[in-house]
Amino acid sequence: MMDRQLLVKRLLWRAEHVFGANQVITRTGGGYEVCMYAELAVRVRKLVTALRGLGVRPGDRVLTLAWNSQRHLEAYFAVPGMGAVLHTGNQRLSPVQLAYTINHAGDRVVLVEPDLVPLLESIAARLATVRHVVVLGPIPDGTGLSGVQAYEDLLAVADPVEELPEFGENTAAALCYTSGTTGDPKGVLYSHRSTVLHALMLCAAGSVEVAPAERFLLVTPMSHVNGWGMPYACALAGATLILPGTHPGPEDLLQIIHEQRPTTAVAAVTVGTMIRQAWEKAGRTHRLGSLRRLWLGGQAPSAAEISWWARTCGTRVVNGWGMTEVSPLGTFCSVAATPEELADTTVLERQARQGRPLPLVEVRIVDEAGSELAWDGQSAGELEVRAPWAAAGYFDQASGADSHRDGWLRTGDVSVIHPDGSMQIKDRTKDLIKSGGEWISSVELENALMGHPAVREAVVVAVADPKWVERPLAYVEAQAEVAADELISYLAERFPRFWLPDRVIFVQQIPKTSVGKFDKKRIRSELAAGALPEVMRGGMRHEDAVGGRG
Amino acid sequence: MMDRQLLVKRLLWRAEHVFGANQVITRTGGGYEVCMYAELAVRVRKLVTALRGLGVRPGDRVLTLAWNSQRHLEAYFAVPGMGAVLHTGNQRLSPVQLAYTINHAGDRVVLVEPDLVPLLESIAARLATVRHVVVLGPIPDGTGLSGVQAYEDLLAVADPVEELPEFGENTAAALCYTSGTTGDPKGVLYSHRSTVLHALMLCAAGSVEVAPAERFLLVTPMSHVNGWGMPYACALAGATLILPGTHPGPEDLLQIIHEQRPTTAVAAVTVGTMIRQAWEKAGRTHRLGSLRRLWLGGQAPSAAEISWWARTCGTRVVNGWGMTEVSPLGTFCSVAATPEELADTTVLERQARQGRPLPLVEVRIVDEAGSELAWDGQSAGELEVRAPWAAAGYFDQASGADSHRDGWLRTGDVSVIHPDGSMQIKDRTKDLIKSGGEWISSVELENALMGHPAVREAVVVAVADPKWVERPLAYVEAQAEVAADELISYLAERFPRFWLPDRVIFVQQIPKTSVGKFDKKRIRSELAAGALPEVMRGGMRHEDAVGGRG
Repeated sequence: MMDRQLLVKRLLWRAEHVFGANQVITRTGGGYEVCMYAELAVRVRKLVTALRGLGVRPGDRVLTLAWNSQRHLEAYFAVPGMGAVLHTGNQRLSPVQLAYTINHAGDRVVLVEPDLVPLLESIAARLATVRHVVVLGPIPDGTGLSGVQAYEDLLAVADPVEELPEFGENTAAALCYTSGTTGDPKGVLYSHRSTVLHALMLCAAGSVEVAPAERFLLVTPMSHVNGWGMPYACALAGATLILPGTHPGPEDLLQIIHEQRPTTAVAAVTVGTMIRQAWEKAGRTHRLGSLRRLWLGGQAPSAAEISWWARTCGTRVVNGWGMTEVSPLGTFCSVAATPEELADTTVLERQARQGRPLPLVEVRIVDEAGSELAWDGQSAGELEVRAPWAAAGYFDQASGADSHRDGWLRTGDVSVIHPDGSMQIKDRTKDLIKSGGEWISSVELENALMGHPAVREAVVVAVADPKWVERPLAYVEAQAEVAADELISYLAERFPRFWLPDRVIFVQQIPKTSVGKFDKKRIRSELAAGALPEVMRGGMRHEDAVGGRG
Repeated sequence: MMDRQLLVKRLLWRAEHVFGANQVITRTGGGYEVCMYAELAVRVRKLVTALRGLGVRPGDRVLTLAWNSQRHLEAYFAVPGMGAVLHTGNQRLSPVQLAYTINHAGDRVVLVEPDLVPLLESIAARLATVRHVVVLGPIPDGTGLSGVQAYEDLLAVADPVEELPEFGENTAAALCYTSGTTGDPKGVLYSHRSTVLHALMLCAAGSVEVAPAERFLLVTPMSHVNGWGMPYACALAGATLILPGTHPGPEDLLQIIHEQRPTTAVAAVTVGTMIRQAWEKAGRTHRLGSLRRLWLGGQAPSAAEISWWARTCGTRVVNGWGMTEVSPLGTFCSVAATPEELADTTVLERQARQGRPLPLVEVRIVDEAGSELAWDGQSAGELEVRAPWAAAGYFDQASGADSHRDGWLRTGDVSVIHPDGSMQIKDRTKDLIKSGGEWISSVELENALMGHPAVREAVVVAVADPKWVERPLAYVEAQAEVAADELISYLAERFPRFWLPDRVIFVQQIPKTSVGKFDKKRIRSELAAGALPEVMRGGMRHEDAVGGRG
């Protein structure tokens, strides 16, 4: 067989040649910027010339500090395409963490959005390796950064390279850092091979089924695990890609859906909630009906969420499981309750599972001794994964040996696998609550609480207990009047007595991590410090979980 | 990223673990043999033990002379799974050619169906390397072959191996010989990598979309280019696989569709025609409605064929383009006319195109000087292909240097590519007719003739002409009374005057190759020898094009 290496440029070849007239649409201040894939491919080849002019060589790292936009997408193809490594910086890390990742990666060139220049300025003094800064729009007046150039100026004078180079498929293509809330972020280095295989898998039936006739609204930040691989999969499939641009809020997303009529939107669970709240608030006038599917990730969607979308606009909520170390996708669930089944909690429960292992992904669950557990829907153990797009280790990091066991990636997620092969996350290993020698799943309690009509969001953590070692405590963000007693009674119908939280604390907003997940580490550390009021005062603006820097 | 090699056993892992309860169904004499994927995987591991016991070592070639059956499928996984090479012998080659391929491959063990034992006996004296013969059923009485054993006897005493071995993904997995009707057949060696990538591609949206909820009836022989990759793709996707067993005729296929209710059937165009003729003949009582799709390959389906299936049972005819050297699939067309569009020949014409290049497949068309031609739907040139599942050369064959140009596989097919990226075969380079310095496409004339209601099948070949160099001549197999003049008038409405065949010859049945294509080489050589009556008397029984040996 031909020795055709699996390179990112093969994805672009198909977008350019086969689906050249299909579009990439980016929300701008006043409307939308539209670019056909055929045009995009030429701009990508110009960007390669421009980056070479800035001294970027194969293997060098190029940082993006960027929103989901056409120019960011161009970097997604040009940087790996020339043999360099695309480091998608997470603007929602703390400045100290962000600077750490840039220095750790050794980034030489930064592509930065105009509105994120101040962020870059704030850490400029800490950066050891950056030589050039390219602004993806007008250069802000009076910037203190040196050697700043405008992206479009560079492209205007760049001749497109004739062809992107060939090299081995195990060459590094991209670099993302895990967004741990304590300790230094760790880098995961994706290869061309892993990126291409992951993209092809996203096109498979039973997976995301990325197809040319679809219009994908990508809300998930492209700074977060390759935008869940969607920019690459959409190019491979020739699908229309709709990008929300700079700092989108829920109202902006609503407007995009209304105007651009995506068939599928991809976002975190919390963003899905924000969109529907914004829709209600805006008088239910925006058209949502184009959305056949809503892929909600980051955590399991609640039955209430699934139900709302199905009833309101016939949208099927799908979800999966993934992590930075798995590119990210490992399992996917495309089960959908029919309208008649929406009242059936067992069907909704199946739809909220994280789904079956995807093609080429192998999973197992193991107990604490490392023995494999049965796929009986009952036995819970740590989920372990093998896949051509799963990390074998971390970038330039000696430690992390406990991240793998016998060639399997340890995910830190506790799950069961049902006899039909569908996987269901029960908890993070470190979020399990051990009470009187028995395990309590914080995730199951949270999901149950969020099924109560008065609860918007809920998080359950362990607090130390002299008698039981640990006991559950619930934080609840309510959207209607409700008493703690009522919530406990509600849970008592569903769980053993010893699972019931000892305390329910109502908060204004539950703190979240930079990628929109419940920040249990922060809650626990604040609790340990007796800082409950801090938690209660804390909170994020709406924009943060959508993609803002806060 | 993890160094997970793309091995055939990964496909089986998913079938066994995730879709273990899904079925492989084989037609037998009296009914069906049903096996769950979980059982199949255990039998595969037993077969590995059995083959090791017969001395099969990694790299050795194992021949199958088998129909589409569960046991054949087990060999599909066990032989490559243990690191040996599966040579799927084509029982419809001439005995001399078959013996040539077995000796050329150096096959050590033969897995043979009971009814094909006489074929093996007839060539046994010529075979130089075969050490063991395993019969996939009862051993026929009085066989003259030595060292014959029964498959089920071997499996009954074999312990399943615990795990299939790991090795490099470029290891050879399977071997098929091209079925040239003159000259020695040439072997194409597939790797594990090419097999896995091809299977994953078959699952992609816009491709065959193999999915767990589907029931695939695989009529295409598993002895023909890996059964078009479907056995592997179905395992990867967990799809139900329905196999027609020994020597199926059109009536058998009709019965299977009626009883097993496949959602998709995969067959050659000629077989599709036979099934509908058998349906009409049998009184239109068999249920065809389960068939949402009918993938017809080998040549372009006619507008009449597409229309008949859509009108009669709502079945969408899809087609693609492939060849032994491309594993086989390179392009695929899933366009479907709506019921309202069935009267619109432009829509049917689009549906009959060979479709867009599949993910990771690159195509181009070039003129005789090797210069690339435009994708304008007008410029016709030789189709060239690059793909991770396209052959770089032939197995153990020094010649064949003209099979490639600058790293591209020369397909020998003349095609155009339309601006929407869809490819349309115009002819084989060697079937083009050169008349008075202009090209005439035999395929376009054939398709037009087959659009006439009185024509069942038609083939057009060149005959030498002292004035024009070549002139077209048509062979027509009629299904109703029609005069040659009427057919010429019919063509005159559609083509330039100089395209019109000089002669129309009515034949009882058009000769076909061992894989069911029009045998133009035979027709030409008989014509050259002045052997017209031979052609007219010639013909095949129905079973032949379905899978018979004749």
